[in-house]
Amino acid sequence: MTPEVIPLGTASAIPTRDRHLAATALRRDGAMLLFDCGEGTQMQLVRAGLKRTKLEAIFITHFHGDHFYGLMGLLSTLALLERTEPLTVVGPERIEAIVRTLPGLANDWLPYEARFVEVPEDFEHEIVYDTDAFFVEARPVAHRIFTMGFRYEEKPRPGSLNVAQANALGVTDFAHYRALKVGEAVTLESGATVRPEQVIGPARPGSVFAYVMDTRPCENGVALARHADLLYHEATFGEAYAQNARDTGHSTACEAAEIAKAAGAKRLLLGHFSARYDDVAPLAEEAQAIFRNTEAAVELARYPLHPAPVPVD
Amino acid sequence: MTPEVIPLGTASAIPTRDRHLAATALRRDGAMLLFDCGEGTQMQLVRAGLKRTKLEAIFITHFHGDHFYGLMGLLSTLALLERTEPLTVVGPERIEAIVRTLPGLANDWLPYEARFVEVPEDFEHEIVYDTDAFFVEARPVAHRIFTMGFRYEEKPRPGSLNVAQANALGVTDFAHYRALKVGEAVTLESGATVRPEQVIGPARPGSVFAYVMDTRPCENGVALARHADLLYHEATFGEAYAQNARDTGHSTACEAAEIAKAAGAKRLLLGHFSARYDDVAPLAEEAQAIFRNTEAAVELARYPLHPAPVPVD
Repeated sequence: MTPEVIPLGTASAIPTRDRHLAATALRRDGAMLLFDCGEGTQMQLVRAGLKRTKLEAIFITHFHGDHFYGLMGLLSTLALLERTEPLTVVGPERIEAIVRTLPGLANDWLPYEARFVEVPEDFEHEIVYDTDAFFVEARPVAHRIFTMGFRYEEKPRPGSLNVAQANALGVTDFAHYRALKVGEAVTLESGATVRPEQVIGPARPGSVFAYVMDTRPCENGVALARHADLLYHEATFGEAYAQNARDTGHSTACEAAEIAKAAGAKRLLLGHFSARYDDVAPLAEEAQAIFRNTEAAVELARYPLHPAPVPVD
Repeated sequence: MTPEVIPLGTASAIPTRDRHLAATALRRDGAMLLFDCGEGTQMQLVRAGLKRTKLEAIFITHFHGDHFYGLMGLLSTLALLERTEPLTVVGPERIEAIVRTLPGLANDWLPYEARFVEVPEDFEHEIVYDTDAFFVEARPVAHRIFTMGFRYEEKPRPGSLNVAQANALGVTDFAHYRALKVGEAVTLESGATVRPEQVIGPARPGSVFAYVMDTRPCENGVALARHADLLYHEATFGEAYAQNARDTGHSTACEAAEIAKAAGAKRLLLGHFSARYDDVAPLAEEAQAIFRNTEAAVELARYPLHPAPVPVD
């Protein structure tokens, strides 16, 4: 399946009647990642029709309550659902001690292994999660307290076998197809050798998602979003409140758009909206003047991580 | 205003698409109490149209996550709303240390005073909150871990002045009315003395609400619910799962009804329903065979704490 990004909460600080606290799911091939886990995330997963059991890793940007107070309830519910597979939790230093303090979340009680990956405050950038198919990189961003941004990047997949071309060169054996696909040359009965580069297309790049929350616009925001298929950047305020953004360590919609533009991202989602905005369409409009392919994130909507055509600006 | 009880969450353990985690508001004369505070309570308060700022005390029954993981987010939001009035939090021992461990909830950060009242496990019964108008009593109940039930009881209000009777006795002066109302005898110009009991009706009893969650049926459940205008008792299971109730330290709907009957309660609300029930009407029907004035609690509905007429059984 095409990976999908599903915003679960687009509020900042205080939930409103219409907006929930920060959390974003990324769904791919039967697995799910979660970026931030504000209070109520486990309910939003249910409303989104996402199976909590598919979760394999949770990435917490920072220790403001609106980004992680839902972690305890979610870990507890996974226990009640009798999870046994390990679960990775990436977050700032001390996250394990904080979680384990809560009654019900001590190590010996959970029926599954919670693997905490604690990132120290003085790091520059780090692969915090790595699988055969993708990795997640963290970089520090510029908020009031230590905060990370995350970049999900799929590893390139091997190119496709051009069967017609292979047949023309005399390759007809499935064992030979398989060898060529994994990069091995084959020698045919005729004595001829066929090399992979003769029949295998170029490696197909994987998609990239950048999650940049709670930060002033910063260089690491650009690094995380470099050529991303989708950048989800915080836009707590519109231009009229640019001073509030500076004072509180947040970004405006226009600042988010500048980051998307500088990074050569393909598509920009805005979120983490201040409770002062009932209607966030004007924020998206402000940003579109700078980066056309911008939208205000809609909770529970699904944003496919298809390499989208870059709009002509 | 007539006090109202507003169930905010009627789920047990795991939230479902339709039911939220345990929390119940009691609203009276510009103030609000909260019994339990499961994850998502602050959002349910918004949906219920209840002002979070009116909250004056929170009562946590026990340390299972579904009853208190929403406390941290709510305390944090009250800080963001710039609360300055003190807030009382009643709960089992250690509750303050647990809350203070979370980043953002350390003592020096909250702009208001959080007054924790910690109840030791070996208590028998105790007034845990007391005001001029009402008090809240706690008693231990019978769950898997230390758990309390709560009884909200309004203090009797003085009886009404019978003005016609007072006039007939020669009392016409407002200062005399006031004196009689606060229990003082008055001497008229004629030299006659009028005593309060001659013109003031009987004291009017206050209303009583009992909150009995997460317990096997027990004597303290009956004590808490004695003559209550409204008993909100957990009913995690129906009769078909009575063994599950015994195994997990919970009650069936019928057991809740037996408690209401034994206590002489006037009205019974059932809640804390297992996620296995999509429709909880059959649980209420089972209970009605034992205690007629029973309903399944509806989230966000308002149950006035009017002394309701006792149904004739």
